[in-house]
Amino acid sequence: EDSSDEEPPTMNPVYRRSGKDLAKLILLPTLYFALMIVACVFAFYTIEGVVLSYNNKVQSVQLVEVKDRYPPIGIVILPQFSNYSFCQYRYYDDVSPDPEKPPERCNKYKLPETCTYFNVSFNSTALVNVTRFAMVFKGPTLVDCKESLLLHFSINTTSRQFSAVEYILFENWNYFESLKENERKGFLASLEQYRDIYTFPAGFRTWVKMSYTIRTDYRATTNKTDFNIIDNYASFNDPGLDGMYPMEVVFEWKDRYYDYVRDIISTTAWSAFGSICGVFITLVKAGEFCRMWMRRIRRDKEKKMLHLKKLEEEHEKELEAYKERQKEK
Amino acid sequence: EDSSDEEPPTMNPVYRRSGKDLAKLILLPTLYFALMIVACVFAFYTIEGVVLSYNNKVQSVQLVEVKDRYPPIGIVILPQFSNYSFCQYRYYDDVSPDPEKPPERCNKYKLPETCTYFNVSFNSTALVNVTRFAMVFKGPTLVDCKESLLLHFSINTTSRQFSAVEYILFENWNYFESLKENERKGFLASLEQYRDIYTFPAGFRTWVKMSYTIRTDYRATTNKTDFNIIDNYASFNDPGLDGMYPMEVVFEWKDRYYDYVRDIISTTAWSAFGSICGVFITLVKAGEFCRMWMRRIRRDKEKKMLHLKKLEEEHEKELEAYKERQKEK
Amino acid sequence: EDSSDEEPPTMNPVYRRSGKDLAKLILLPTLYFALMIVACVFAFYTIEGVVLSYNNKVQSVQLVEVKDRYPPIGIVILPQFSNYSFCQYRYYDDVSPDPEKPPERCNKYKLPETCTYFNVSFNSTALVNVTRFAMVFKGPTLVDCKESLLLHFSINTTSRQFSAVEYILFENWNYFESLKENERKGFLASLEQYRDIYTFPAGFRTWVKMSYTIRTDYRATTNKTDFNIIDNYASFNDPGLDGMYPMEVVFEWKDRYYDYVRDIISTTAWSAFGSICGVFITLVKAGEFCRMWMRRIRRDKEKKMLHLKKLEEEHEKELEAYKERQKEK
Repeated sequence: EDSSDEEPPTMNPVYRRSGKDLAKLILLPTLYFALMIVACVFAFYTIEGVVLSYNNKVQSVQLVEVKDRYPPIGIVILPQFSNYSFCQYRYYDDVSPDPEKPPERCNKYKLPETCTYFNVSFNSTALVNVTRFAMVFKGPTLVDCKESLLLHFSINTTSRQFSAVEYILFENWNYFESLKENERKGFLASLEQYRDIYTFPAGFRTWVKMSYTIRTDYRATTNKTDFNIIDNYASFNDPGLDGMYPMEVVFEWKDRYYDYVRDIISTTAWSAFGSICGVFITLVKAGEFCRMWMRRIRRDKEKKMLHLKKLEEEHEKELEAYKERQKEK
Repeated sequence: EDSSDEEPPTMNPVYRRSGKDLAKLILLPTLYFALMIVACVFAFYTIEGVVLSYNNKVQSVQLVEVKDRYPPIGIVILPQFSNYSFCQYRYYDDVSPDPEKPPERCNKYKLPETCTYFNVSFNSTALVNVTRFAMVFKGPTLVDCKESLLLHFSINTTSRQFSAVEYILFENWNYFESLKENERKGFLASLEQYRDIYTFPAGFRTWVKMSYTIRTDYRATTNKTDFNIIDNYASFNDPGLDGMYPMEVVFEWKDRYYDYVRDIISTTAWSAFGSICGVFITLVKAGEFCRMWMRRIRRDKEKKMLHLKKLEEEHEKELEAYKERQKEK
Repeated sequence: EDSSDEEPPTMNPVYRRSGKDLAKLILLPTLYFALMIVACVFAFYTIEGVVLSYNNKVQSVQLVEVKDRYPPIGIVILPQFSNYSFCQYRYYDDVSPDPEKPPERCNKYKLPETCTYFNVSFNSTALVNVTRFAMVFKGPTLVDCKESLLLHFSINTTSRQFSAVEYILFENWNYFESLKENERKGFLASLEQYRDIYTFPAGFRTWVKMSYTIRTDYRATTNKTDFNIIDNYASFNDPGLDGMYPMEVVFEWKDRYYDYVRDIISTTAWSAFGSICGVFITLVKAGEFCRMWMRRIRRDKEKKMLHLKKLEEEHEKELEAYKERQKEK
């Protein structure tokens, strides 16, 4: 039974008592810290995106079709050194029409026989100490019939070095018409200061193709109208009599469509909040899962530990026995 | 032991039996109701945002570079009272070029010797009972070499009051070329009705710098081409012979870039659905947490209650004892 | 007790032993599979939306107001066959101003007496073997006072068929001024190649109303300036002396606003990730709930089953009894 070659029993060094504390002290806090960092980074970038999209609204552009007619706009002519001759509402025709030719088409609407306009004198804000004379015409409306407003002026070419007439467009003729004499002066002065001033040259018939863009904000509460015009020119062939040079302008709508632009918030706070909730709750779930998983690992380890403890105890007993056997020898 | 100064035992009035029922009857329903309202408000605004973004698509604008050449476009000239003289494909040169000068550059491509064009007569839809004569030219393509199409017309300045020539651009020359004679008439009539008609004046060489914008929808299934032109004018110095005034137009591409516009839904239903899910599940979790928390409070209260009940019973016993002691007196 | 009419006891056939296995083998896997498909479809469309919004950035357009003055831009004039006469910085006036009239307004700023410009000759890239002569002017800055730059040229109308002058705009005069002689040549050559070249015609005063758009990317790191000009023409009335025709150009700012365009990603990966998390966690919760619900149904079924088993056993006993009774008969 006994032999002097007998070696002392050895033990597998797998078992470490620190396992349990390690998980509690390091792994779990590290995990929660990592999840927290992920959540914070996510929240930061999501909130940054929301702030960015609130500060930088994007534009939704819709093409709106006008039925039959546009609401009447106002056309402010500042004739200065030129003389007003006549105006006419006409239908679309070729660029060299016969003025005597009656309008043949668009019979369902009758064009007004005479132009509607007001003469207004106002104090210029762009020029100092100048009272300007303006003629404010009601613009064409019947886009379906290609209604156009023809204005004829003449200018004395010998008295001026060069000649052109300025004009300004505004969007609400009906509002202007409802104003009192004095209010109209102020209205025109502010138009002169803030609106684009266009010109048309002497010696030409200028075709002004008008279009506009209506801009509104996110809640569609305010409206702002921007005009956009395309000029086309037809040359007058007759040089004018007695140094009086003719100049004409024809205002017409470009087409029956206008742009309606609305500011849109691409990422709303609501949707971002939902995203953040989704991520946070996922991380909470992930945290719960990890804790459960760690507990399971720990339990397995504890079982192993108990098993190892038994083995250890048995080993110690064996060791004792071995030592006693050695002593007895 | 006994004394007549003895007062009856009193009791702390903290303990209320209604605690348990209060939580069950008022607090929890209130909580759930509040969470439900939060969820509904959130869902409402998120869904509103989705509806808004589906109704107001935003535009993604990309600058697309053309390699070497654009696909050929069509240029419809409506010469009316002017006479067509000649046309030429040319390379870019300065604005007052020598017509005899051969193109020196862009040797890798050979310009066609002759212009490609069709004469078409069609029934006008804009003018009543008028047959219009149109010349449809193949537009320039080699943007890299600044290829341009020069058209020369002359007009009798004594017969007309003023003179200009109309033109229309369309995007697909190859499609037009493939049409039959009759289909071409209909195609031009519809162009005249729906497209922008531009003009160039007599007495000038008009430089038309063309660019276009291709618009497409969310799924990129349909295409719509909008032209945008910039006119520049050079004055003819010679007055024209025998009352025949020259007029020229040069069509060229503005540059090798065009805009590609795509309608984008900024907040898709999918992403909004995810947001709503995130919020709802968070509220569910919050509800669970609150219920758990309340249960713990209630349990604590019940413990307290038991403790108080004991105190109460002891107090009653003491009270009984006290009364008996008083009776004995 | 016994009768020959007695029928054998029957049993309700509700109870099927397969119930438990059915749920485990078919219902739950089907449910999980369905949830997984929902999750995948959702994730696919959400990720598709993100990819789409990264590839198709949308534009945020802001109107930025300039205080007092724009930074100076550069105006490159390529006079070619025309002769430069003079230039002037002026304030806004009507289109036919008196050159002797001193500027009366905008007293807080003094306009420079003389124009700032450089003469540069460079090798053209658009034309072969041509050295072009350019005059580079410092543009107007005081938008508040409507400062404008007037340039006067004259051109020999007998030597050329038609006449116009080309010009190019660039955004950073200060950068150009800081360049060395040679670098300026290269700078202009690259402008001629890549920028829009505009022209103004002889015989007119051309009013060039300038505006620009600054484009930047999502992170606002790069800037790109696009010019947009509106031409207005005023005709010269005097025919010019000795065949020298006058031509003028006036550069001025359209208004004190410019567009600032920023590319925006409408659906960021962050927000989409949150959405996906929200949906997944909801589906996980739904799965848990369904499993719980099925377990409850199963438990109910098991109770019913036990009850039915008892009934069955009783029935069998009765059946045995019945059979024995029949046998006894």
